[in-house]
Amino acid sequence: MGVKLGILGLGTVGTGTVQLLQDLNGRHPLLREIEIHRVGVRSPQLPRAVELAKNVLSTDLEAIVNDPAVDIVVELIGGLEPARSLILKAIENGKHIVTANKAAIARFGDEIFTAANKAGVYVMLEAAVGGGIPVIQPLKQSLSVNRIHTVTGIVNGTTNYILTRMQTEGSNFSDVLADAQKLGYAEADPTADVDGLDAADKIAILASLAFGGRIKLQDVYSEGIRQVSKTDIAYAEKLGFVIKLLAIAKTLTPSPSSPSSTPPLSLRVHPTLLPKEHPLASINGVYNAILVEGEPLKQVMFFGPGAGAGATASAVSSDILNLVAALKTSTANPNPLLSCAHQDYCQIVPMAELITRFYARFLTKDQPGVIGKLGTCFGTYGVSLESIVQTGFQGELAEIVVVTHDVREGNFRQALAEIHTLEAIDSIPSLLRVL
Amino acid sequence: MGVKLGILGLGTVGTGTVQLLQDLNGRHPLLREIEIHRVGVRSPQLPRAVELAKNVLSTDLEAIVNDPAVDIVVELIGGLEPARSLILKAIENGKHIVTANKAAIARFGDEIFTAANKAGVYVMLEAAVGGGIPVIQPLKQSLSVNRIHTVTGIVNGTTNYILTRMQTEGSNFSDVLADAQKLGYAEADPTADVDGLDAADKIAILASLAFGGRIKLQDVYSEGIRQVSKTDIAYAEKLGFVIKLLAIAKTLTPSPSSPSSTPPLSLRVHPTLLPKEHPLASINGVYNAILVEGEPLKQVMFFGPGAGAGATASAVSSDILNLVAALKTSTANPNPLLSCAHQDYCQIVPMAELITRFYARFLTKDQPGVIGKLGTCFGTYGVSLESIVQTGFQGELAEIVVVTHDVREGNFRQALAEIHTLEAIDSIPSLLRVL
Repeated sequence: MGVKLGILGLGTVGTGTVQLLQDLNGRHPLLREIEIHRVGVRSPQLPRAVELAKNVLSTDLEAIVNDPAVDIVVELIGGLEPARSLILKAIENGKHIVTANKAAIARFGDEIFTAANKAGVYVMLEAAVGGGIPVIQPLKQSLSVNRIHTVTGIVNGTTNYILTRMQTEGSNFSDVLADAQKLGYAEADPTADVDGLDAADKIAILASLAFGGRIKLQDVYSEGIRQVSKTDIAYAEKLGFVIKLLAIAKTLTPSPSSPSSTPPLSLRVHPTLLPKEHPLASINGVYNAILVEGEPLKQVMFFGPGAGAGATASAVSSDILNLVAALKTSTANPNPLLSCAHQDYCQIVPMAELITRFYARFLTKDQPGVIGKLGTCFGTYGVSLESIVQTGFQGELAEIVVVTHDVREGNFRQALAEIHTLEAIDSIPSLLRVL
Repeated sequence: MGVKLGILGLGTVGTGTVQLLQDLNGRHPLLREIEIHRVGVRSPQLPRAVELAKNVLSTDLEAIVNDPAVDIVVELIGGLEPARSLILKAIENGKHIVTANKAAIARFGDEIFTAANKAGVYVMLEAAVGGGIPVIQPLKQSLSVNRIHTVTGIVNGTTNYILTRMQTEGSNFSDVLADAQKLGYAEADPTADVDGLDAADKIAILASLAFGGRIKLQDVYSEGIRQVSKTDIAYAEKLGFVIKLLAIAKTLTPSPSSPSSTPPLSLRVHPTLLPKEHPLASINGVYNAILVEGEPLKQVMFFGPGAGAGATASAVSSDILNLVAALKTSTANPNPLLSCAHQDYCQIVPMAELITRFYARFLTKDQPGVIGKLGTCFGTYGVSLESIVQTGFQGELAEIVVVTHDVREGNFRQALAEIHTLEAIDSIPSLLRVL
């Protein structure tokens, strides 16, 4: 029997999720158990990028969370209300929840998780932090065997985009913000991003999972990037730093004294000077990254697109997949996400068929026309050159380095074999592939 | 009732795992369900860094995999035999498996997983690839909703360490290898690392999970780094590249034509010229990183320590945790790794108590002794300075930038308040924290 979804909201993320679930080739086979039963929208007459049966679309969101056929409610309308009430009603009705709503979880997490535990349902929120980066599940599962002491994140793409451009262009905050708004990287009202509020929501959620305690959002210190000037970015650069908006959760005592207590935390969002060699220092543009540090792991970092329809749909769908696996697991059926699901062998293509760029270094006798002869041989086998450098000499021999455009490896090897026979060629000491 | 482990092997990783499991404060509470029932070793008289009851240690590994009390066998002896036979026997006896043994899984995965599916048990292998980096579980679960087209990894720390040093020092392969062997970063027989065989094992495992098909290890093309010369590294640098040993699994057709078939794969390990701006280009030293690309996610990268007792113990323990959760889950008990396990609030420390470094920029009247006055004020409140720069002028005013050593934020703010009252100080336009 299929697992029935009630999806609330068909904006960017909702549309991306439906597209993913309607196009299953090459994805986890368990997704085939899913049926999009109802999709709640405000304006059913709007043109949509996805096709749904007439009886699937509905404007009555309340009816969806009350529909006895729905197993999982996927809340993608965002904002505080009616999202909070709909989630709570769905939980009361025994439905599992998938949500991308960081604002609601950061504010009403206590109420929502208490209700979920009472009802025996799961609330999944991979999409709430870090877009498509799987970070919520690792924090809840794999990484939780560690005694985590620090979570540091670049979790807001808009501010990271602005700071990156200020740094590379030497521009002012207000100029870059205006341009980012024009390009769609910043909202018309940029407050939530620029003043660090969105990052505060996210670090509250990450800290709660990493340190096993609930967080009052007003306890998160939050400072945005409006005050960061190009002068400071230039000074920071000179001193060996870059400036990033970091969200930080850090224990003050490395190890809790009693097994049940959680350690006191420092919890904050602020622009920070970061040494250039720090793993987070090279995260640029709209990308997000989360660095988790603990014992005995030391450190691990997750990096990826922090927003966007595809990335967020990936996270939402992974939560749905996890729930489907949980619903399908029983003593008779092992969890399909833990066991090996395939028996067939992959078909591996021989190296001769590989299409790649090559780097090759030739030692040649210093004769006129060597480069021309190389070029002719390459041409015969359809190898075109991206660059050719003749700089060094090794004794009597000239050194020529070429980088090719994409070429079939088999063709390139044939060209090399012919080049090897040329009288002017002494040897080909290096042959490397280029990504 | 507790979940009983039979651990095979008490080397570096085995010892790290036992240490983690014997010191549970601050880790996931579910680990308390675990009992270390038996630990199999070759030499019971050796001194050990962990204390175990006399009846726990045993030299009879066969007896451990046959012990009816054991629920999970944790295979940490490495190598092909007797590891393979012990794993198969344990599976036959209905025990779940946790293993860090990439060599055995890459060679006997087909046999092992077929047996596990038949017996209805799980084989977990997070520690086999990427040390402490959670990459196996995300590939099996979160990321599997994507149509993955490429997995690219730096999955061998030894070769990455050697290439990084060759690049930064301009040294020869053989010199760096000899030094790495002396420092313990390379084995006395470096073949498996240096010739790409270890990386081949790992990309075979990653490809199998990413593309949902089994892999014959002999299908993986493998080329090591012995041929990489400092000359090539220098040319690569000049052309905008770094050279990395990459393990690559890539589909040749972006989307499979039929739902059940897996797409043809290119599967290879070789030194590769990588554009400097590529996310993997800045992964240096013994670190590992795995970049996963697919649709609709685009790309996500996992970064962390690829080896070491702590990192590998973290991965092994996370697999054990996942199995304990699976064993404890029933219709009455929801999966404790999916539900929210905590009710208490975290204790958040006020910002005044934060210990951090500060960056501050002052505009001062161009009077003699201003720096001295600043220094005196900072000294009064115990703020010590790491660096002080006076370079710029803004009109009539001199610009002074300071970076402090670690200081209590409250003290720093008091010092600033006093500095504000100094006649020579015009303003303090910037105040930022330094990581």
